[in-house]
Amino acid sequence: MSTEKCFANGSAAPGPVPKGHIRLYSMRFCPFAQRTRLVLNAKGITYDTVNIHLKDKPDWFLEKNPLGLVPTLETPAGEVIYESPITCEYLDEVYPEKKLLPSSPFAKAQQKMMLEHFSKVTPYFYKIPMGRRNGEDVSGLEAELKEKLAKLSKDLANKKTKFFGGDSITMIDYMMWPWFERLETFELQHCLDGTPELKKWTERMREDPAVKVTMYSTDTYKAFYKTYVDGKPDYDYGL
Amino acid sequence: MSTEKCFANGSAAPGPVPKGHIRLYSMRFCPFAQRTRLVLNAKGITYDTVNIHLKDKPDWFLEKNPLGLVPTLETPAGEVIYESPITCEYLDEVYPEKKLLPSSPFAKAQQKMMLEHFSKVTPYFYKIPMGRRNGEDVSGLEAELKEKLAKLSKDLANKKTKFFGGDSITMIDYMMWPWFERLETFELQHCLDGTPELKKWTERMREDPAVKVTMYSTDTYKAFYKTYVDGKPDYDYGL
Repeated sequence: MSTEKCFANGSAAPGPVPKGHIRLYSMRFCPFAQRTRLVLNAKGITYDTVNIHLKDKPDWFLEKNPLGLVPTLETPAGEVIYESPITCEYLDEVYPEKKLLPSSPFAKAQQKMMLEHFSKVTPYFYKIPMGRRNGEDVSGLEAELKEKLAKLSKDLANKKTKFFGGDSITMIDYMMWPWFERLETFELQHCLDGTPELKKWTERMREDPAVKVTMYSTDTYKAFYKTYVDGKPDYDYGL
Repeated sequence: MSTEKCFANGSAAPGPVPKGHIRLYSMRFCPFAQRTRLVLNAKGITYDTVNIHLKDKPDWFLEKNPLGLVPTLETPAGEVIYESPITCEYLDEVYPEKKLLPSSPFAKAQQKMMLEHFSKVTPYFYKIPMGRRNGEDVSGLEAELKEKLAKLSKDLANKKTKFFGGDSITMIDYMMWPWFERLETFELQHCLDGTPELKKWTERMREDPAVKVTMYSTDTYKAFYKTYVDGKPDYDYGL
């Protein structure tokens, strides 16, 4: 697509997905959609992006995915895939170059169990900023998040590897990364103070080409999330 | 194992998992563990069962799985796998006989998306009985459940197949079945009144050998769930 600007209701539908491409319906700042963007980039897949105005979704998008979720993938055959871990696993199976999930069933199950644990971490990135905005005391939530990050750091230390699936980046690293990229944005950087292993992991992740190319600066995130918590998200911020 | 009786804290740990076996930590009436039992039976896998007293879990079980969840699988190598969909996919990968998940990445993604939808259905089987027990009006919850089942029935009618993944049973059917088996137990049978396709599917499912062998009678479920909602679950009911 020639534009990064989001498509709102009333906008003309994009044409069919070109042969040899895959299309990602996304929102530039969505951490779940970033998972899919990371995998697309890491694997060098040719894709186009259609960003969606999540507060005013086009009818043609809701026809493709009645749940209106991003990330959603669409193939040239009109197949539609959503839910971030499902999109990522689908991409890893269809595009065999640079496999991100391990081939051993147990190692794959381990990554899925880690992801299941991590799904208990992501809600804090919503609850803490919203709580602060409403003037609530979020110190309890911050302590819970710290505890969960400490557990992750301990797991990584026990593995004695650079990344969560070994000494190179695998799927689970990309599945967790987007929230770490936003720690500073949400003034939660201090939650990594007692977790040296995890901190080192974030430094290694920042060196990864797919991470670099899908990343926004903390200033950009801060500006976007300000509009988000104020209830008027500016999906085109910075364009 | 020679006993179906549950292991509570203080009980002697079972020995190592014999070579060529896999062990399932389970609870006889748990619908999530039944998913794994269905897959084990459908694929003809040799396994032993260790039922766990979920209100008084043995320390040796918590050492294997600190979350204390059933179903949990353990291999002779001491590998531990939990979360019902993860255990089922693991079994389907390790034991290639009678594959339950489709090999096409898109068909597999479809089953996972269906499972994600279905995860919004299962909580009603807890909320409705608990609400009734507390004397609450559950008609709203029942209406919501009916709507979700109607959607499932419509999806099946649109597919024009006997089961959710085609004309023979596949993984998604087993993932959903345990809750349908309990409809009558929870006096929710009437929720299938307006869903003829789904009703026919339940009749077909009841003919499946793995369903037959993992099933309990409605009388047994009723007796167990009575002890459950009263806060003193009799995990050994009927033994």
